[in-house]
Amino acid sequence: MTSISFITIGNELLKGTIVNTNASDAGLILRKYGYALDRVIMIADTEEAIREAIEKEMAMHDIVLVSGGLGPTKDDVTKYTLAKIFESDWVMHAPTLAHLEARYASEGIGLNDLTRLQAKVPSICEVVPNALGTAPAMAFQREGSWLFAMPGVPYEMRHILEHEIVPRLQTSYPTAHLVRHIFRLADIPESHAAQRMETIEEGFDPMIQIAYLPREDGIWLELTASGPRDTQQHIEEVMTQAVKAVRVLFEDKAYAEGDATIPVLVRDFFQEKKLTLAVAESITGGGIAARLVEASGSSDYLKGGVTAYSTQIKIEQLGVDPALIEAEGIVSEAVALAMAEGVRKLLKADIGLATTGWVEKNEKIPAQVWIGLKGKDLEASRWAKLRYRRKINLNRASFYALQLCLKKVMNHF
Amino acid sequence: MTSISFITIGNELLKGTIVNTNASDAGLILRKYGYALDRVIMIADTEEAIREAIEKEMAMHDIVLVSGGLGPTKDDVTKYTLAKIFESDWVMHAPTLAHLEARYASEGIGLNDLTRLQAKVPSICEVVPNALGTAPAMAFQREGSWLFAMPGVPYEMRHILEHEIVPRLQTSYPTAHLVRHIFRLADIPESHAAQRMETIEEGFDPMIQIAYLPREDGIWLELTASGPRDTQQHIEEVMTQAVKAVRVLFEDKAYAEGDATIPVLVRDFFQEKKLTLAVAESITGGGIAARLVEASGSSDYLKGGVTAYSTQIKIEQLGVDPALIEAEGIVSEAVALAMAEGVRKLLKADIGLATTGWVEKNEKIPAQVWIGLKGKDLEASRWAKLRYRRKINLNRASFYALQLCLKKVMNHF
Repeated sequence: MTSISFITIGNELLKGTIVNTNASDAGLILRKYGYALDRVIMIADTEEAIREAIEKEMAMHDIVLVSGGLGPTKDDVTKYTLAKIFESDWVMHAPTLAHLEARYASEGIGLNDLTRLQAKVPSICEVVPNALGTAPAMAFQREGSWLFAMPGVPYEMRHILEHEIVPRLQTSYPTAHLVRHIFRLADIPESHAAQRMETIEEGFDPMIQIAYLPREDGIWLELTASGPRDTQQHIEEVMTQAVKAVRVLFEDKAYAEGDATIPVLVRDFFQEKKLTLAVAESITGGGIAARLVEASGSSDYLKGGVTAYSTQIKIEQLGVDPALIEAEGIVSEAVALAMAEGVRKLLKADIGLATTGWVEKNEKIPAQVWIGLKGKDLEASRWAKLRYRRKINLNRASFYALQLCLKKVMNHF
Repeated sequence: MTSISFITIGNELLKGTIVNTNASDAGLILRKYGYALDRVIMIADTEEAIREAIEKEMAMHDIVLVSGGLGPTKDDVTKYTLAKIFESDWVMHAPTLAHLEARYASEGIGLNDLTRLQAKVPSICEVVPNALGTAPAMAFQREGSWLFAMPGVPYEMRHILEHEIVPRLQTSYPTAHLVRHIFRLADIPESHAAQRMETIEEGFDPMIQIAYLPREDGIWLELTASGPRDTQQHIEEVMTQAVKAVRVLFEDKAYAEGDATIPVLVRDFFQEKKLTLAVAESITGGGIAARLVEASGSSDYLKGGVTAYSTQIKIEQLGVDPALIEAEGIVSEAVALAMAEGVRKLLKADIGLATTGWVEKNEKIPAQVWIGLKGKDLEASRWAKLRYRRKINLNRASFYALQLCLKKVMNHF
């Protein structure tokens, strides 16, 4: 297995003012081509930290990726440190200079000296083109290890890694065949899911690896299997069998499979069945609708919604009977269902989905949500306790509602 | 300066299936208290990788933070590796067991053996409580260095770091006195803000450090000053002067100061002025309302909203004139204002806020949003181009609307 380390350079990563998406993006891209990241290191923009990390990682890994610190301003020192480490002279790289001139000309700006410096590179490196930006990437070789230095701008890094570096890797480093399957579990703690798995996992081929990934929408149970490319057929057979067994085991708890987002799952199902949806949100504010529109094309099925944060709006807009509120309480199954039916009729949708709840606990009542779902011949509801702080409770309540919707509507239509 | 390293453990980090927000969160939290992260390492859930990283980082740093791999399932090996590294026996930790029992009892679930294992800890460690979750954190000491192992669940990690670990650090590792002031700038690129700052920053005491932090809601211009605790008064005088100068300089671009969230800023203002708000959201789905209810007590001023995703709902629910839509287009200033007025009247609120836009560009039209704001004697609107991918555009559109609301309503009342 090719061993790959990734050194991400930047003070702002350590200060926490930006999140290291380059690390996860690199992981995803490498994995797509059958490679894997062994470790990622985040360090400051100092010559000392960069030198120490590079020397150490090159000694331990086949491939060292580096991102960040290639810009033209004073705080970027990666290129100068690399020249020192590899004891290299400097050279003006003509194709990069031409690329910079063309790029700036197209924007009607002349090259200044700072920008021109981007084309100056250590003579010992192989220049790797950066089609989307101004700082070129560079490849260095030492004792069988390769180092690739990339700019830190996320879309430039992604493009260079996938379209320049991966093809170079493929000529020298063979990859494994990897198969992956995800079950999305709801309403089951990780420990209970694992205990249930114990009843079947002994029968699995040892190639199958099991992981439990806690996510906003519950536990993702992930099966992976990998091996040499010439055993591809065997790997896939082994995975197919394991998937079948897990599917039966979690029939009551898995609300979806695969890694699509919930908005995409909902959109795909509603589009396929030509159904429309309307939401009435009290506790969740507008969180369900806000999440649904994250999927492109949601206007095809999402009619709209009512944020019924006040009792007055529940009565006047959604037509909830004040006597029902009086009798059952504003946070109740009956009111959730009445809201769902109200918004379904108001906005002329096939399905109405509603939430009502308390996002924070008080002395007597726990934080909780009632979810109601109504269709022409369909009615479903659920209650859930909310046990975290406000923002997480809001997210959970939205997820519980969308999971109920996915499960019940899929079973019905 | 206290030297701190953070080892984040988890195969999913290296696979790229989750982004390492724990690293940036830890950076932000430590910084808030005058500490700084020196490096972050991301490694796999294997005993070998964990052991190698911990040995090395403990030798080099005063404090080593560790997150991840503390769950009860087989893929989590951090706790077992720590027991080996520190050559420790095991003990059942009674307070943790009681915490687990109370937690599960409140859910009506019994403790299974796997969950009970969470209370089993190396006898050599000091148990650090995890108020929000089931896996306790642990503190280990060796030759003057401390290691804190925390669960990887982000909100548990954040809570434990800030409320358990930082207070422990503060007793042994003195920090500088740090003063920090944030200006929230909107509608100005970082480079222009920096250029404007050049006109005054020469007059600043050299102690003042300036940073430009790109955030979802625009640029946060951050001033910090720090020094020994006995110079506290001088530090604060210097900061007060700098803040005054920056406040004048960015009077037109700063829509708020401090690090409160936008929902909190809006709530505080509306509560103080006893105003009510209603929102009509087309492009943003429900994102504005969803964000507003993140602040506790938002039901005091937020009446509710209408997600008017379809033209039909804009007309039937919000009373937008079909002739106006025909003449001006569904994405127009006139329609945004009509939606704002419609929702204000429908939900009987003092202020109506509305969005209409295209979240994705097509061949002819850029992605864009029109925002309308209506009060009794108040009308405001703005247009903004949306230049990123769908999810970011949705967030931006919500922020633009809330910024307009804050600025215009604050100026008016």
